[in-house]
Amino acid sequence: MAIQKPSIPKGTRDFGPVEMSRRNYIFNTIKNVFRLHGYAQIETPAMETLDTLLGKYGEEGDKLLFKILNSGNFLDEIDHSSLIPKENVTELIYKLVEEVFLAKDMKPDGFRFASEKDRKDVNSFIISGIISSFSLNHLAHEISEKGLRYDLTVPFARFVVQHQHEIEFPFKRYQIQPVWRADRPQKGRYREFYQCDADIIGSNSLLNEADLLQIIDEVFTLLGIRVKIKLNNRKILSGIADYIGQPDKITDITVAIDKLEKIGAEAVNQELQNKGVSVQAIYKLEPVFAIGGSNAEKLADLKKLLQVSHAGIRGIEETETLIAMLNTLNLKSEVEIDISLARGLNYYTGSIIEVKALDVEIGSICGGGRYDDLTGIFGLKDISGVGISFGADRIYDVMEQLRLFPSETAESARVLLVNFGEKEALFCLSLLNKLHTAGIATELYPDAAKLKKQLSYADAKKVQFVVMAGENEIREGQLTVKNMVSGEQVKVIPEDLVKLVS
Amino acid sequence: MAIQKPSIPKGTRDFGPVEMSRRNYIFNTIKNVFRLHGYAQIETPAMETLDTLLGKYGEEGDKLLFKILNSGNFLDEIDHSSLIPKENVTELIYKLVEEVFLAKDMKPDGFRFASEKDRKDVNSFIISGIISSFSLNHLAHEISEKGLRYDLTVPFARFVVQHQHEIEFPFKRYQIQPVWRADRPQKGRYREFYQCDADIIGSNSLLNEADLLQIIDEVFTLLGIRVKIKLNNRKILSGIADYIGQPDKITDITVAIDKLEKIGAEAVNQELQNKGVSVQAIYKLEPVFAIGGSNAEKLADLKKLLQVSHAGIRGIEETETLIAMLNTLNLKSEVEIDISLARGLNYYTGSIIEVKALDVEIGSICGGGRYDDLTGIFGLKDISGVGISFGADRIYDVMEQLRLFPSETAESARVLLVNFGEKEALFCLSLLNKLHTAGIATELYPDAAKLKKQLSYADAKKVQFVVMAGENEIREGQLTVKNMVSGEQVKVIPEDLVKLVS
Repeated sequence: MAIQKPSIPKGTRDFGPVEMSRRNYIFNTIKNVFRLHGYAQIETPAMETLDTLLGKYGEEGDKLLFKILNSGNFLDEIDHSSLIPKENVTELIYKLVEEVFLAKDMKPDGFRFASEKDRKDVNSFIISGIISSFSLNHLAHEISEKGLRYDLTVPFARFVVQHQHEIEFPFKRYQIQPVWRADRPQKGRYREFYQCDADIIGSNSLLNEADLLQIIDEVFTLLGIRVKIKLNNRKILSGIADYIGQPDKITDITVAIDKLEKIGAEAVNQELQNKGVSVQAIYKLEPVFAIGGSNAEKLADLKKLLQVSHAGIRGIEETETLIAMLNTLNLKSEVEIDISLARGLNYYTGSIIEVKALDVEIGSICGGGRYDDLTGIFGLKDISGVGISFGADRIYDVMEQLRLFPSETAESARVLLVNFGEKEALFCLSLLNKLHTAGIATELYPDAAKLKKQLSYADAKKVQFVVMAGENEIREGQLTVKNMVSGEQVKVIPEDLVKLVS
Repeated sequence: MAIQKPSIPKGTRDFGPVEMSRRNYIFNTIKNVFRLHGYAQIETPAMETLDTLLGKYGEEGDKLLFKILNSGNFLDEIDHSSLIPKENVTELIYKLVEEVFLAKDMKPDGFRFASEKDRKDVNSFIISGIISSFSLNHLAHEISEKGLRYDLTVPFARFVVQHQHEIEFPFKRYQIQPVWRADRPQKGRYREFYQCDADIIGSNSLLNEADLLQIIDEVFTLLGIRVKIKLNNRKILSGIADYIGQPDKITDITVAIDKLEKIGAEAVNQELQNKGVSVQAIYKLEPVFAIGGSNAEKLADLKKLLQVSHAGIRGIEETETLIAMLNTLNLKSEVEIDISLARGLNYYTGSIIEVKALDVEIGSICGGGRYDDLTGIFGLKDISGVGISFGADRIYDVMEQLRLFPSETAESARVLLVNFGEKEALFCLSLLNKLHTAGIATELYPDAAKLKKQLSYADAKKVQFVVMAGENEIREGQLTVKNMVSGEQVKVIPEDLVKLVS
C-alpha cells in the first residue's frame, strides 16, 4: 500500500490530551449544574432520517446538512432508466437525425463518417444531449436517506414524540453531543462541534425560564466568565409591530431596532421605508427607539406604548414575572431587557435569551428561548417548551483568552515510577499496585531508558512525583522520591510512599 | 408541513435517562481506571477522509463504511461528460444505425417512425445502451470523499502520525467515542456503537501488556463482572506453523485448533487436509492438540515442541515474562493461555488478549493485542504499540442480565419542591437556591398541578425527598418533608432543610 500523508476533513479537529481535559472541564461544569437542577441526560443517534431533518432549518439549513450515502451496492440497485426521462430520448433521436444527420447530408451507409470531425461532432452532440437530460437530483434522492444531525433541538423534538408514552412530563433533559454543518469553515466556525442543551418540555410556567437563567448564571460563575444575560420576549416584538399597525413587518422592525445604535435613527428609518414600512408607522416607532434606562423603566415605557396590543401586554407581564423571580434568586450576572434581541424569531414564541461575555468580543456564548410548537411537526401538538444551548467552542476560546483554565486541567498521572531494568521494574509493580489501590494515578515507565529521558517524560506530562527504586534503593529498602514542582528530593520506606504522594 | 411519524435509522438507538445513567456508570468506571494508569484522553472527528479509511479493514470492511456525500451542489459540479466514456457513444451510434435503423429499413425521412412500436424499440435500445455505458463507480468517487469512522484504531494511528512532533512517546491515550458500521443490524449488533480504547504506542516493553491486563482486571472487578482473560501470542502461532513445516498455513491451523473441542480431532484433520495441509504436518500437530493443563504446563509443552522455531521461542519467552509480571500484580481474574485465540490475526504481531464473561454467554467483552506497524501505512515506521478495546454495549447487556447496575444509577434530582401556586413557588425559589448552593440536586415542580400528580412525578423520577411549603407551612415557618423511600413525613424549619436531606 502506498504511504499516505495523513489529514482530516476541513472544518474538523483532533483534540489532544490538554485540549481534552480543558474541554472536559467545561462539559463537566455544565453537566453538574444541569444535574443539580434535575435535568436527566439523553443521547440520540448521530444519523437521523432525512425525513426528520429536511425542512426544519430553512432552505439554507437543508443545504448545510451532511448526507450519508445509502450503504451496500446502492449504485447497482438504482433503477438506472429513471435517470433519463424517456421523453428526452425520443427528443434526442429526433434532433440527432434532423439536426446532425440530415444537415450534414450523411447517409447511413454502413454508417461510416465522412470525416473524423463529423464523428466528433456527432459524438459531442449526443453526449451533451444525454447529459442535459440527466436527472441527477433524482439520483441524489435515491442514494441518500440519512443525514448527520444539524442541532440537538430537532432530534430532541423527534425523541419526545417517539417516546412520549415512556416520558414523564414535564420532561427536563440535557444533551451534550456533536452536531455537523457543511458550513464554509472559518476561524471559530467548524463543521463538527458540540452543543450542550437543556430543555424543559410540557410546562408553560415561567419558573422554567427562571430555572434556565439560574443555570446560565451558575455555569458562568463556576467557569469564572463575567457575562451579561440579555432577555426579550417575542410577544413584546409582536406588540411593537401591532402598535405601529404593521404586524407583518415584525422582522424588519426588530432588525431596525438592533441597528439603531450602529447606524443612527435616520438611516434606520430610511431602511424601514425601503422595506415598505409606512411613514406613519415609522413616526410611531420613535418612542420605541427611545426606550432605555433600567429594566423597570423599560417595562414601564413599553406598558404605556403597547396598551393596544394583547400580545404586547402578555409579553410585558411575562417579563415582569420573570424579573421578579430572578430578583428572588439573586443572580450574580446582570440581566438586561433588550428589545432588539430577536434570535430565532421564526421559532421562539415567548422568552428569548442570549448571553454575552463581558471581557471578550466574541458574539453570544449561550442562547435560547421558548417555543410553543416544537413537536407539532412530528404529530404531537400543544406541547410548550423552553431551552438553552451553551456554545462549548466559544466558551473554550473565551476561557483560553482570559486564562481561566485551572492548571490541573492537564489530565495526567500524579506519580511516575522510574524503570531501571527488568528486576527493578518487577519490584516497582507492587508499588504500582499499592498506589493504584489508593486511587493515585501512577505510571511505571515501560522501558529502561536513560534517567534523563524518563525525567523529561515526567516533566512533559506534568507528573508531580517521580519515584526512583534502583538497585541500591531496593537493597536499602528506601525509595528516592523527587517532587517535580519544588525539585526537592527525599528518601522514604515503601510503606510511607502512598502517604507522601497523596 | 405534513405530519411525520418519527423514526430513527435502523441499527441506531436513542438512549433515555435510565439507559444514559447506566451507560455513564460503565464509561466513568472505565475512564477512571484508564486515568489511574496514566492514560490521557483524545478525541478525533467523526468524519475521516476516505483516503484514511479505505483499505484498512479488508474488502468487507470497505463495504461497511458509511460514506458522506460531498456538501454543496456537488451534483452540479460533477464533470458529467466523465460519466459516459466517449468511446461508448461512438459504439452506440454505430449500433443504433446498423442494428436498428438499417435492420428496420427506416429512412431518416424527416424521421417519423413507421409505428409506435418502432419508436419504443429505438427508445429502449438507446436507453439500455446509455445505461450500460454509465460509469457510476466513477460517480461514487466524485460525490464522496469522507466517511464515518469505523473504529478508533485507524483514527488513532492517523492522529499519532499527524501529531508525532507534539506527542511525548511512549504515548498512552484513551478514547471513548462512537463508531459506525453499515452492518446488517441484529440483536446486539448496531450501526452506531461506542468503543472504549486504551493504547500505548512507542514502547516494546511487556510492562505495557501487564498494564493493560491490570486495567481489564480492575474494570471488571469494579463493575462486578466475573471474567476469564485469555492470552495468546501471535509468535507462538507462527512457531506452530513453522514446527509442522507449513508456515503459510498459520490461519488454517489456528482455526483448526479452535474447532478441536467442538468437532473433534478427526473432523479437524479432514478439514486441514482439504485446506492443503500435508498428512505429515497434520501428524505433527497431534502433540499440539494435546497441549493442556496449567499455564506453566502449556508453556513447558510448547517449549519442547517449538525449539525449531525462532519465532515460537520468542513467543513463549514473552508469554512467560508476562505471566511472571501478572503474578506480581495479583490479578483477581483468571488468566488462561489459549493457543486457539487468534483474533485479528493479520493485524497483531505479539500478544493477543480476549476477555469472556463467566456468567453470561455473549462472546468477548474486551479484546486487544500488540501491533508492530500500525502507523506504517501513514508513513511512520517501526513504532510498536499495544491496545485494548472494551465493548460497552455487550458489557451493558451482561450487567443488565446479572442485575449489576447500582440502583442509584437512575440519574435524578434528590429533592422535589411541591408547587402550590404562584406565591408559594416564589417562597420555594429561595429554598431551591439554598439546596443548590449545598450541592443537592433539586427541582421545583414548575406548575401548580394537583399534589397527587406532583407526587407521582417524584415517584417516577425516583426523587428521595418531597418538600411541601403550602400556605400553612409558610405561615407557621415549618416545612413538611416526605421521605419517598420510607414514606415517613416530618416537619422542619427552613434552616434545617439542607441538613435533613443531605
